[in-house]
Amino acid sequence: MRVKGIAVLGSTGSIGCNTLRVVEALGEPFRIVALAARRNVAKLSEQIVRHRPLLVSVEDERCAEELRACLRVLGSTVEPRLLIGEQGLIEVATHEEASCVVAATVGAVGLVPTLRALEAGKRVALANKETLVMAGELVTRTARRSGAELLPIDSEHNALHQCLRGEDRAEVRRLILTASGGPFRACDREAMERATVEEAMRHPTWNMGTKVTIDSATLMNKGLEVIEAHWLFGFDADQIDVLIHPESVVHSMIELIDGSVIAQMGITDMRHAIQYALTYPQRLACTLPRLDLTRIGMLRFERPDVERFPSLTLAYRALRTGGTMPAVMNAANEEAVNAFLQGRLKLTEIARIVARVMERHAARAASSLDEILAADAWARRRATEEIGALGCNASAPV
Amino acid sequence: MRVKGIAVLGSTGSIGCNTLRVVEALGEPFRIVALAARRNVAKLSEQIVRHRPLLVSVEDERCAEELRACLRVLGSTVEPRLLIGEQGLIEVATHEEASCVVAATVGAVGLVPTLRALEAGKRVALANKETLVMAGELVTRTARRSGAELLPIDSEHNALHQCLRGEDRAEVRRLILTASGGPFRACDREAMERATVEEAMRHPTWNMGTKVTIDSATLMNKGLEVIEAHWLFGFDADQIDVLIHPESVVHSMIELIDGSVIAQMGITDMRHAIQYALTYPQRLACTLPRLDLTRIGMLRFERPDVERFPSLTLAYRALRTGGTMPAVMNAANEEAVNAFLQGRLKLTEIARIVARVMERHAARAASSLDEILAADAWARRRATEEIGALGCNASAPV
Repeated sequence: MRVKGIAVLGSTGSIGCNTLRVVEALGEPFRIVALAARRNVAKLSEQIVRHRPLLVSVEDERCAEELRACLRVLGSTVEPRLLIGEQGLIEVATHEEASCVVAATVGAVGLVPTLRALEAGKRVALANKETLVMAGELVTRTARRSGAELLPIDSEHNALHQCLRGEDRAEVRRLILTASGGPFRACDREAMERATVEEAMRHPTWNMGTKVTIDSATLMNKGLEVIEAHWLFGFDADQIDVLIHPESVVHSMIELIDGSVIAQMGITDMRHAIQYALTYPQRLACTLPRLDLTRIGMLRFERPDVERFPSLTLAYRALRTGGTMPAVMNAANEEAVNAFLQGRLKLTEIARIVARVMERHAARAASSLDEILAADAWARRRATEEIGALGCNASAPV
Repeated sequence: MRVKGIAVLGSTGSIGCNTLRVVEALGEPFRIVALAARRNVAKLSEQIVRHRPLLVSVEDERCAEELRACLRVLGSTVEPRLLIGEQGLIEVATHEEASCVVAATVGAVGLVPTLRALEAGKRVALANKETLVMAGELVTRTARRSGAELLPIDSEHNALHQCLRGEDRAEVRRLILTASGGPFRACDREAMERATVEEAMRHPTWNMGTKVTIDSATLMNKGLEVIEAHWLFGFDADQIDVLIHPESVVHSMIELIDGSVIAQMGITDMRHAIQYALTYPQRLACTLPRLDLTRIGMLRFERPDVERFPSLTLAYRALRTGGTMPAVMNAANEEAVNAFLQGRLKLTEIARIVARVMERHAARAASSLDEILAADAWARRRATEEIGALGCNASAPV
């Protein structure tokens, strides 16, 4: 069997670590060939010893130094090539022995390496949803041109990919993304106003990274996923719906024109979606616990409350406006989430900041990287100003 | 577009009537070309006036006379060819202008015409589950030889067919048939002992014919469906599970080897499954109400109680024994259900009769029609004796 080399962008994050566990569980012919991380050199050095990649990249020279020291301490016999910065990320993403690149960095940093991987014809298993939100047109065009495959790792889009396997796209009426509703699903507006970071981090069903967990608490995560679904599957905003499903067992659904609904279900463990993206079109056996619907007992479904969760409406608006608007929304949201995490903003003010930045933006075409990055930078500056102006703690440095 | 001629065996029953409504709603190129019914000439004559079939068959000469009279009263300008008995059923099933035969008779009478339709290379849309339970090997062999398609109309199997569309059979771990649990799902044993026909006919979610509704109350219907699923999809008894799901929204599911579960959902209206079987592999738009999960609110799942519903265990036993045993179980069940409907047997005695007949049967190969029909006849005689011996009303004629 031909070796299936895997490169991981963001190997020390939640998706990255799970990817390594999946590759280890799968065994031959899957193997890790390249890893990129930012600053978590302790974890990265363990990963290097265990997976023996050929190439590794970290954020800067200082991290590289630390990594070398860590590897010496561990008595590592492995000496991967060591690179830094964006160039390092790009070389990991285009490593000649990688047939599949898992794009699992957080935020905008993953965009350029992902484009390079697609240009090189690699399968990209995409966990970084900002990539498609910012640059959906550019990314899908790049994939189409090179014939590279784009497979979603987000559990919802992975579910949609599975539901769509046997179907003709023209016979699909709509996509239905499910959302757990986050920790504030059943809270009133006042409780949300007072929400602490700790409360917002208590996701009811999924164990994920910080940024995506906060986005789940505001439903912006689902909004980003609506835009992501548009680019991955080619459906319009009107054909993508969101349904609150607190148990997160149904990962998403499609409705066909004949009224039939196809749903994908599973336990809430990202390793399922990761494995699917690595092995597709094959399915391979998996040793994770199996879904037991009798243990869960019941599955609930509710309409989302767009009054309490205005981020969802903002995301639909950004998708319908198109061009640079989704990138602007995404950048403003990243800044606002950071401010919330630093105690400079209330949870409910995140959407307010995003809305103000969007109102002030005149959307333009988003067909080149420069246009997108310019819009992103503008939105971050603007969001920083808005956060400062709102200032529940305006003296803190931004 | 080429005309898609539809022949219906059992046109005046629940599935038959719904098939005519589906064909009418679909319009061109679908049209009814032949209809077979038993004795309901009033309804049949209306169907003839409305759908103008070329060929019609009824049970016997007396029914044919009545039908002619009915058509005169209606002032019908349609004069279809009129046949009777099994030969009539067979000619309807093999009508040269029919590309698809909907087999919706109740009980064993549909077996021979269904085999003839398959031999003639027609697509068979199968609602009559007894056909596969009695003669699964023969029917599937016949279909394989002629290359004819067999599409299930039973909502559960239709759901499984949809779930399996995009999947490699070798990657499917198991089929999961859902069951509403019937009207006695939450009753204790004593209440079931006392159950009247009226109570047993109160199906919680589906509006169906008499025999299948009683079978749903005992879960024998689900047992028959396990056997049906074996023949339709080629999975062993160990790979077919049953899950109680009172809302009947998830019509059935499959579990893949990677742990993913794919489910098909819809409203409880047989016209969905019928349309799917007629239009497959295409899906066509449908004007029936759409599934609204937020209105239903929650979906429950429970393990079946095999103590209170021993029929399920009997069906697995029959499938594992193989040969003539499923036909024997089916025939004994038909007799016992009739006796229950006539007030000669308690609901809970149905499974007892079936178990006794099965115990007394030494299964043989079921590769020819003669062997199957002999086993069927033996089981009916034996069941009649057992019912008489049990005799809560032993003096009534059998």
